[in-house]
Amino acid sequence: MLFQVEMHVRVPDTVDPARFDALKAEEKARAEALQKSGKWRHLWRHAGQYANTSIFDVESNAELHELLVGLPLFPFMEIRVTPLCRHPSSIHADDR
Amino acid sequence: MLFQVEMHVRVPDTVDPARFDALKAEEKARAEALQKSGKWRHLWRHAGQYANTSIFDVESNAELHELLVGLPLFPFMEIRVTPLCRHPSSIHADDR
Amino acid sequence: MLFQVEMHVRVPDTVDPARFDALKAEEKARAEALQKSGKWRHLWRHAGQYANTSIFDVESNAELHELLVGLPLFPFMEIRVTPLCRHPSSIHADDR
Amino acid sequence: MLFQVEMHVRVPDTVDPARFDALKAEEKARAEALQKSGKWRHLWRHAGQYANTSIFDVESNAELHELLVGLPLFPFMEIRVTPLCRHPSSIHADDR
Amino acid sequence: MLFQVEMHVRVPDTVDPARFDALKAEEKARAEALQKSGKWRHLWRHAGQYANTSIFDVESNAELHELLVGLPLFPFMEIRVTPLCRHPSSIHADDR
Amino acid sequence: MLFQVEMHVRVPDTVDPARFDALKAEEKARAEALQKSGKWRHLWRHAGQYANTSIFDVESNAELHELLVGLPLFPFMEIRVTPLCRHPSSIHADDR
Amino acid sequence: MLFQVEMHVRVPDTVDPARFDALKAEEKARAEALQKSGKWRHLWRHAGQYANTSIFDVESNAELHELLVGLPLFPFMEIRVTPLCRHPSSIHADDR
Amino acid sequence: MLFQVEMHVRVPDTVDPARFDALKAEEKARAEALQKSGKWRHLWRHAGQYANTSIFDVESNAELHELLVGLPLFPFMEIRVTPLCRHPSSIHADDR
Amino acid sequence: MLFQVEMHVRVPDTVDPARFDALKAEEKARAEALQKSGKWRHLWRHAGQYANTSIFDVESNAELHELLVGLPLFPFMEIRVTPLCRHPSSIHADDR
Amino acid sequence: MLFQVEMHVRVPDTVDPARFDALKAEEKARAEALQKSGKWRHLWRHAGQYANTSIFDVESNAELHELLVGLPLFPFMEIRVTPLCRHPSSIHADDR
Repeated sequence: MLFQVEMHVRVPDTVDPARFDALKAEEKARAEALQKSGKWRHLWRHAGQYANTSIFDVESNAELHELLVGLPLFPFMEIRVTPLCRHPSSIHADDR
Repeated sequence: MLFQVEMHVRVPDTVDPARFDALKAEEKARAEALQKSGKWRHLWRHAGQYANTSIFDVESNAELHELLVGLPLFPFMEIRVTPLCRHPSSIHADDR
Repeated sequence: MLFQVEMHVRVPDTVDPARFDALKAEEKARAEALQKSGKWRHLWRHAGQYANTSIFDVESNAELHELLVGLPLFPFMEIRVTPLCRHPSSIHADDR
Repeated sequence: MLFQVEMHVRVPDTVDPARFDALKAEEKARAEALQKSGKWRHLWRHAGQYANTSIFDVESNAELHELLVGLPLFPFMEIRVTPLCRHPSSIHADDR
Repeated sequence: MLFQVEMHVRVPDTVDPARFDALKAEEKARAEALQKSGKWRHLWRHAGQYANTSIFDVESNAELHELLVGLPLFPFMEIRVTPLCRHPSSIHADDR
Repeated sequence: MLFQVEMHVRVPDTVDPARFDALKAEEKARAEALQKSGKWRHLWRHAGQYANTSIFDVESNAELHELLVGLPLFPFMEIRVTPLCRHPSSIHADDR
Repeated sequence: MLFQVEMHVRVPDTVDPARFDALKAEEKARAEALQKSGKWRHLWRHAGQYANTSIFDVESNAELHELLVGLPLFPFMEIRVTPLCRHPSSIHADDR
Repeated sequence: MLFQVEMHVRVPDTVDPARFDALKAEEKARAEALQKSGKWRHLWRHAGQYANTSIFDVESNAELHELLVGLPLFPFMEIRVTPLCRHPSSIHADDR
Repeated sequence: MLFQVEMHVRVPDTVDPARFDALKAEEKARAEALQKSGKWRHLWRHAGQYANTSIFDVESNAELHELLVGLPLFPFMEIRVTPLCRHPSSIHADDR
Repeated sequence: MLFQVEMHVRVPDTVDPARFDALKAEEKARAEALQKSGKWRHLWRHAGQYANTSIFDVESNAELHELLVGLPLFPFMEIRVTPLCRHPSSIHADDR
């Protein structure tokens, strides 16, 4: 089951840079692992923004929730979740 | 080059149903052709909405424009265009 | 899997009253059938609004989509879909 | 009498983590007690958000107010209150 | 129990003036009757707008709903409902 | 002359609690005095919000301004002012 | 007492041009008369918009209301009313 | 003096296609003439939208207004005007 | 050439009160000087808000910009600029 | 390929002035270099705002992204990106 998730990262000026860098490194590792697992199917950067559009492939809302709140940068994110399903005009086999 | 395009279709009550059905059939044919050509890379339906998220793979802004304004349902669409680029944490080869 | 769906019905002044009344009767029948099936778990009216909050219990985004677009009044609805999951503080067995 | 309450928790970067953890524990205890009392009828998590949709069953606006402002995390919450009532198409006995 | 209700009347250009005048006359009669009954406690016009702020005194959300949807001009109204309760600094005996 | 004033109090996490409590006590005293004077005609709490709807009865915009900016909690308030006047359907003698 | 009033005129496509031209002529006459009376103190056009900013000098909210709803183009206007008062740094004698 | 003007064209479904096509042809001629005159300095299409960003070079707000309201498609346009001036970091001689 | 400028002052809780008071004194002096010069033609306070509507009379966008960014309180301001021009129904000689 | 980019700089009160001044100097140097390279084709200041409209001429979304996130002031910017293309009515050779 696919979900579109847009993540905008808001970094307050008061945050400790070293701490944030560490979180970013953890985030990168987690994202790579989740992509390898097939859960995090697509990950694109919005040009000119500290934001991305991701497509997650999960079994349930609950699984999606656990993945997202488990992201190291989650506390700094504004997130928009859009449940997706197959479009009647899609010819892509796996665009469920 | 990838663009995320969200299309929300607004159907005014005053539209002629027969005319709109014809446009929908043309739209489906156009979408299928563009997907076969590789231009229209992904097409997902938003669950519960007359809307979709699409990913286009084009050479330029101009080509994207021609594709979108050429869609039969374009006059009934509210469109949001987000230019995408490769995310530093993406492991997908083709998520340029 | 649970989804919160808010439906605001917008009735344009140009609509044919008789046609709309017929649609409303169909809508009521469909809603009752879906509630009996267990799919449409809760249905509350917003006080003072032609709107409701519903909780759907479905297997997938796709099933939710089919249910919603199949509603007779769907063309007149502004819909907000929020995927839900179990809250860590919930004591209700079935608030999955 | 039922009220839909959406609570979005905003955690400023300047908050003391230990203090906030203590508040969260208190919040969980309070939520469980109120659910046992029947006042807090439903509690669902929004997938991917630090937010929930709750349904409260109270005797009056005043009682709802006391319950909400008494929540330990109230100072960090953005709240949307929607008074509910029985929907003419509802077949659920207790969806007053 | 008190509710603040803001009503903004939107009159589409396509409406039949005679029909609308008749509805306005009905609306005035209904409003006066409800005020006499004590249900419609306050009714103020927003200066420069086809809108009002009203305070209703009702027993439940359901009663409020029936009153509002029963207004002849309800189909032309954008309504905002705010449940009220006694303010700790209020000295007015009846501002429950 | 009547004005509807909605006040939403936003308390930043960085504020000194003792200072804020002192301001709240002052605010309560000021509100009670102004209500006794007849200037602050109604004061209702929004259920579930740190916000109120008030009706002020003043001679001019300037007087309203002085009253509001003189409130101890004014620096923490988001305020919406709506000038009111008598509604043609009002039967309340004093709903000028 | 001064009020800032912004008026945006929205002309639906369905309006009868001849009727609208007549209303515009009436509007111009009314505006000129009110300016001569001193009530309508300033009237500026927003460059590039079918909108204006006006400053009214009236005795009360009620008088402002009667002036605005009496404008021939009122039914086509989106209006924002801001009550004004003397600014402590103003040196203009009549910017009450 | 430069102004940024964004124009979004909204075409209601009720408009007569032949009339609109004639207006579009007039619009094109007017735009070309104004560009030749140097008044309309830049004209870019927003990819995927019936909208443009234009840069006008005029002597005053009044001149800008006359140019814009004189456009044949003006009645169908949502316009945003942003007055521009030279940026301290600009090296372009004519980006006044 | 006239511009309408709305200034909303947002004072963060973290600002040093003494510094801010000094800035306010400077702001008052600057505003008075600019009004004497005829540049700052009108200055009205929004009743109940830390905001004003001002009318500036300047030769160009650039001059307006220099005046506004030169205001001591500029860093704390949310500003909305609306270029104005003569209204065809205005009878005021100097409402250019 | 052209992109319109609007940049609004938000300077939190907590930022270290000396650090910010250094960033501004770097920003100016970077902007000048990019303009000389032809990438940053236009740069205009919004009158009365700490904001600009820029037109970038780049080969791809990715290049645009690298340019923008590389700006020293990027962490303090709210950015809006609009992909542009040639307008059918444009006579400017280089308004691709």
